[in-house]
Amino acid sequence: MRNIDKDNITDVFMSYFGPDTDPRLRQVMESLVRHLHGFAREVGLTHAEWQTGIEFLERAGRISDDKRHEFVLLSDVLGLSSLVDMINSDPAGTSSSVLGPFHIAGAPPLPMGGDMKRDFGGPLLLVRGRVTAPDGTPIAGAELDIWQTAPNGMYSSQDPEQDLYSFHGIQTTGPDGRFGFTTVRPVSYTVPTDGPVGDILNATGRHPWRPSHLHFIVKAKGFRTLVTEIFPDDDPYLDEDTVFGVRSDLIMHYDECPPEAFPDGFALSGKVKEPFLSASFDLKLVPETPAA
Amino acid sequence: MRNIDKDNITDVFMSYFGPDTDPRLRQVMESLVRHLHGFAREVGLTHAEWQTGIEFLERAGRISDDKRHEFVLLSDVLGLSSLVDMINSDPAGTSSSVLGPFHIAGAPPLPMGGDMKRDFGGPLLLVRGRVTAPDGTPIAGAELDIWQTAPNGMYSSQDPEQDLYSFHGIQTTGPDGRFGFTTVRPVSYTVPTDGPVGDILNATGRHPWRPSHLHFIVKAKGFRTLVTEIFPDDDPYLDEDTVFGVRSDLIMHYDECPPEAFPDGFALSGKVKEPFLSASFDLKLVPETPAA
Repeated sequence: MRNIDKDNITDVFMSYFGPDTDPRLRQVMESLVRHLHGFAREVGLTHAEWQTGIEFLERAGRISDDKRHEFVLLSDVLGLSSLVDMINSDPAGTSSSVLGPFHIAGAPPLPMGGDMKRDFGGPLLLVRGRVTAPDGTPIAGAELDIWQTAPNGMYSSQDPEQDLYSFHGIQTTGPDGRFGFTTVRPVSYTVPTDGPVGDILNATGRHPWRPSHLHFIVKAKGFRTLVTEIFPDDDPYLDEDTVFGVRSDLIMHYDECPPEAFPDGFALSGKVKEPFLSASFDLKLVPETPAA
Repeated sequence: MRNIDKDNITDVFMSYFGPDTDPRLRQVMESLVRHLHGFAREVGLTHAEWQTGIEFLERAGRISDDKRHEFVLLSDVLGLSSLVDMINSDPAGTSSSVLGPFHIAGAPPLPMGGDMKRDFGGPLLLVRGRVTAPDGTPIAGAELDIWQTAPNGMYSSQDPEQDLYSFHGIQTTGPDGRFGFTTVRPVSYTVPTDGPVGDILNATGRHPWRPSHLHFIVKAKGFRTLVTEIFPDDDPYLDEDTVFGVRSDLIMHYDECPPEAFPDGFALSGKVKEPFLSASFDLKLVPETPAA
């Protein structure tokens, strides 16, 4: 095609596809490129703006490494991550919410009743609940990959003062589907603003805060993997999470309890001398294939 | 907002903008994110597909450096670069065409009549013409930044066998607006396929070929900078340039000439013993602000 113009270029793009292209790939690429071209036409994108975009992507590439995932953060602050979560959420299960850029694989096992708080300061939080099917049937042997910030608002991968796996653990539910552990109450924190994504937030007058949360990836055989977070109902940023992660069913109340109410069967049982916080909730997984 | 859903998330995104946001930035970001969200909803983007996209961007970041610009190549093969060229082209001037990922700044001066072919094999190409305003008035002192492939199909930045600036030069037009130099006839070549962009081409059954071309960036005071390429009319890939760069007015005929027809005033004048090719064309620049 020698007479490509701004109105036919998307069709010319599609005409280049080979006949053996996977149909789903063709569908995704066509939609992506129609929207990309539509955007450029709609705003009359200039060369200087295009160059700014290219440099943005190159900068995001340079700042990324095994621990820093600037493209995930970009997807998060543009609402794409949350939109993908919502598109793929099944209302029969717990809502999914953003993975975020700070998950690291290979966390150590966290035994049932184990403690992640160790000697860190801040309020002790007791977390208990069950992993269940939509009808409430407990799921034994479900694996919970749990991670959160330290009291300084940083994930271990951001913080040279922490061990790589501090506030990371993998717990497996017992025959009753139960999980339970102690940790420190997570804090509200800011997403990293020292990279190109931070420049977007600054330029658009947005704050970088996220309400405090505990992250979970929950896996169980025969069920769809759930990536989610839970939030306390008193966090000041619940209504303006910069990555759009809050869903009503993920907001929990943290009960304040006297030390004598601390239950048995935990690593800290008998050692708690101060009031503590307690959060109880179930995480509902949706079967991989709907029941007949 | 706690009740974000897949239908209101784009509006919530816009509600986060601060009141002092630059109006053009707000317009560009709103259109970009509406289209991005529209794409995800339209195809029902899955988490696995989102992850593939993130990994694609991270890989493109890792393979990029000062000489390799994978994000530019991505923009090129998706037709975005050409679309931006066409949106910003003024029909009164020469069409613009893709910058491509191989331009390197700081090329050495190429004197009027100078030679870039040196000892490289392949057909000698004499290039002559004028830089003019739309009405044909010559533009003196216009700067042409010229670059092309070597006969092996590689740009110097891709090829350890070449000097960094081989087949790169900057020529300034004389009082008559004229430029003129000799070089080797550029060859058709493939864009790099060893990175993530090559994977897109493979997966969609597309070839990686570009028709042969000479690149120009033409700058002159008071005129809009022109980024363009010229193509010979006998190239087999004119109708299927993988980066959508061909425009009718950029297709030139290369005349075959006997050695005795080689003109005076060139570095090679009097030294040409074989038939050579000759291309003559003008490059028209559009004033920065339209004449009243």
